Amino acid sequence: MEHIRTTQLHAYAGQRVVLHGWLHHVRALGKINFILLRDGYGMVQAVTQDAAVLAALRDARAESVIEVSGVVVAEAQAPGGFELHDVTLRVITRVTDTLPFPLHKPGIKASLDVFLDHATIGWRHPRQRARLRLAAATMAAFRDFLNREGFVEIQSPKLVASATESGANVFTVDYFGKPAFLAQSPQFYKQVMVGVFERVYEVGPVFRAEPHDTTRHLNEYVSLDVEMGFIENHFTVIALLTRLMRYLLLWLAERHSTELELLGVTMPRAPETFPHIHFRDAQQLIYEKYGVDCRGEPDLAPQHERWLGEWARENFESDFVFVVGYPMAKRPFYTHPDPHDPAYSYSFDLLFRGVELVTGGQRLHRYEDYLAALARMRYPLEPFAYYLEAMKYGMPPHGGFAIGLERWVMQLCDLANVRQATLFPRDLHRLTP
Amino acid sequence: MEHIRTTQLHAYAGQRVVLHGWLHHVRALGKINFILLRDGYGMVQAVTQDAAVLAALRDARAESVIEVSGVVVAEAQAPGGFELHDVTLRVITRVTDTLPFPLHKPGIKASLDVFLDHATIGWRHPRQRARLRLAAATMAAFRDFLNREGFVEIQSPKLVASATESGANVFTVDYFGKPAFLAQSPQFYKQVMVGVFERVYEVGPVFRAEPHDTTRHLNEYVSLDVEMGFIENHFTVIALLTRLMRYLLLWLAERHSTELELLGVTMPRAPETFPHIHFRDAQQLIYEKYGVDCRGEPDLAPQHERWLGEWARENFESDFVFVVGYPMAKRPFYTHPDPHDPAYSYSFDLLFRGVELVTGGQRLHRYEDYLAALARMRYPLEPFAYYLEAMKYGMPPHGGFAIGLERWVMQLCDLANVRQATLFPRDLHRLTP
Repeated sequence: MEHIRTTQLHAYAGQRVVLHGWLHHVRALGKINFILLRDGYGMVQAVTQDAAVLAALRDARAESVIEVSGVVVAEAQAPGGFELHDVTLRVITRVTDTLPFPLHKPGIKASLDVFLDHATIGWRHPRQRARLRLAAATMAAFRDFLNREGFVEIQSPKLVASATESGANVFTVDYFGKPAFLAQSPQFYKQVMVGVFERVYEVGPVFRAEPHDTTRHLNEYVSLDVEMGFIENHFTVIALLTRLMRYLLLWLAERHSTELELLGVTMPRAPETFPHIHFRDAQQLIYEKYGVDCRGEPDLAPQHERWLGEWARENFESDFVFVVGYPMAKRPFYTHPDPHDPAYSYSFDLLFRGVELVTGGQRLHRYEDYLAALARMRYPLEPFAYYLEAMKYGMPPHGGFAIGLERWVMQLCDLANVRQATLFPRDLHRLTP
Repeated sequence: MEHIRTTQLHAYAGQRVVLHGWLHHVRALGKINFILLRDGYGMVQAVTQDAAVLAALRDARAESVIEVSGVVVAEAQAPGGFELHDVTLRVITRVTDTLPFPLHKPGIKASLDVFLDHATIGWRHPRQRARLRLAAATMAAFRDFLNREGFVEIQSPKLVASATESGANVFTVDYFGKPAFLAQSPQFYKQVMVGVFERVYEVGPVFRAEPHDTTRHLNEYVSLDVEMGFIENHFTVIALLTRLMRYLLLWLAERHSTELELLGVTMPRAPETFPHIHFRDAQQLIYEKYGVDCRGEPDLAPQHERWLGEWARENFESDFVFVVGYPMAKRPFYTHPDPHDPAYSYSFDLLFRGVELVTGGQRLHRYEDYLAALARMRYPLEPFAYYLEAMKYGMPPHGGFAIGLERWVMQLCDLANVRQATLFPRDLHRLTP
């Protein structure tokens, strides 16, 4: 008999089926026993009074791999709306040890550190793994949207000969006796590839050797990178990103209501146009509305971002707000200045619920502008030789952005720490699992 | 006026349109001039006798970024079947330097080394970039097939605390003063995640510090990784992989005929079931058919694989052949032995046109079997602690495989060197672009 999944039970009411999965929990209520089977997709409860079934489970602790056969019966009280009667059971892999923490409770009762130490098991918890499903769905929606818009996927190298953005915060690799570095972003490669395909994207790991220890930074994370040619200015990029975020939210709502409900996610408010505010006006607004004078400072602090998130929610019913025109002083050398006000840039951040989620903008595209920008920064030309060659041979006005995947899931699920949304996080103190 | 793409011309016959892209080539035939515009998608020829158009192009060399307006006219002789008449032209970014090699010839007349040195430009060549489109399409088809089969995408860390398969051939990273390593494969992580989702896949970079210099190896490449639980044995994996390869070929044929034609690709013969041969029988066959006695050797040499490819083509009309049951001696410790003949394994290679393309098999799944296998290899337990924990808490029989993306494109397009199918290859001598 074919095995079915827990999510297919509704199509087999009244029929005998076989499922396999993990022994999630056994509730013995005197004579009646409820055996919870969890497979890769969901959960089903098998109801039995059969001594043979219980004998098979003797010495089989939670997480034993089992095969269960039974007749599918609609039962409104059961998880998923169906249960199995007239049950037979076989243990495929017997577990004899006690779990580091129980997986059948509504949440995991363990500190974050203990969870992360045992994450290979911890991710089996239905609520935990739902976050990883949302991460997978986010990547799928991202690619689907961009494929429809004529973007081509690339896979750029992670081993590079020189630091992408600056010499600081880059990991060094012993490359056959010579130093190499881990790419901090696919920035240069995605720009170069605009010369080939006009529109490209990449989903992949990026590496930041930043020695800080915060709830929202990691030393390795998954970056969703986009770059597009023939833009008018950064607002062309903002328009695409807005449509992408709305597409993503619709995708999640339509296909992942199970996970969203399980996690109690409040879906973000995302109007057709997200509000935007110029960096300078944002500082003025913070001064007037919150009484803190950050005018003239080159960047926004986390508290400033939270206030701007609040302002967008209150005034535009939007959980998203663009801050545009960051000062050139704080942006990388390839950033396109505002031609009307060259101290400011054609760059932006997208704040989601008051936290920076996306950074993007228009880039320089003229060879001469690159030479001038590098000279201004006193950077040597040689490490940029291949990048400059692409600029020398005809690049259109272009721009793009990068979304941090784990931070997105963290903010969407209202988690306190990005590590709760990261498969196996890497930070100052953690290189395992 | 909206810009259209070269691939949309057929919908605008008789209408005036605007396109943008790169100045691919100008052919001046006395009074009549043919201006070839290449955009990210294709090519169109603009025909003009207008002195103003030619004046605009003065000092604009190949690869200048241009905007062209014209009336779409069907013309069987023109590339793509349409051309533009009554043309106006504007230069967006002027190129004044001569290219390292011309891009408008049918092929690039440069050595591989020169091509790779200037690959940021070289990939703009229509035939070159078609390979990257096939690579992108391969990833898309791979994910689409697996999503339909209930697999979940994961992104596992590339920075790891210990070598994945063995201590040899692993790159070392300076991780805040301590050594870390670059993952040689997501093997352990994908196995662990079978305990969470039953079926997982990953597309991402893997790193091999192998100091050899061959036409088919790289030190960083893109691996398409699959792992699935609840298998009967390695033939369950082989069946899924066979369907995946046939799905991929259909996907390419249906959606990428332009690229396949441009590259002169002969589509592989892929019968509903690919032939398979046991490792031992393969050695016997080579002895009987080709007169070379490799019986008893622990592995196949490249020439042996070519002969097996020939045998599969001649006898089964298949460009694919599975070799199953490799000796345990040459396979990693997590390989499942053949219970009927424990010197051989439940592993396989898939040869495509006589070259190894995929390696896979069934893995051990019982905790005790892992302890015994590690003891046999005299490996310490500590580096495998998190992996062993997943095995301790209930793993089903499982297996999987990994496909090398660049090698697939290389073999499909009949290229002499995997570097011709790799965006920016990394080898002993090359860390740039």
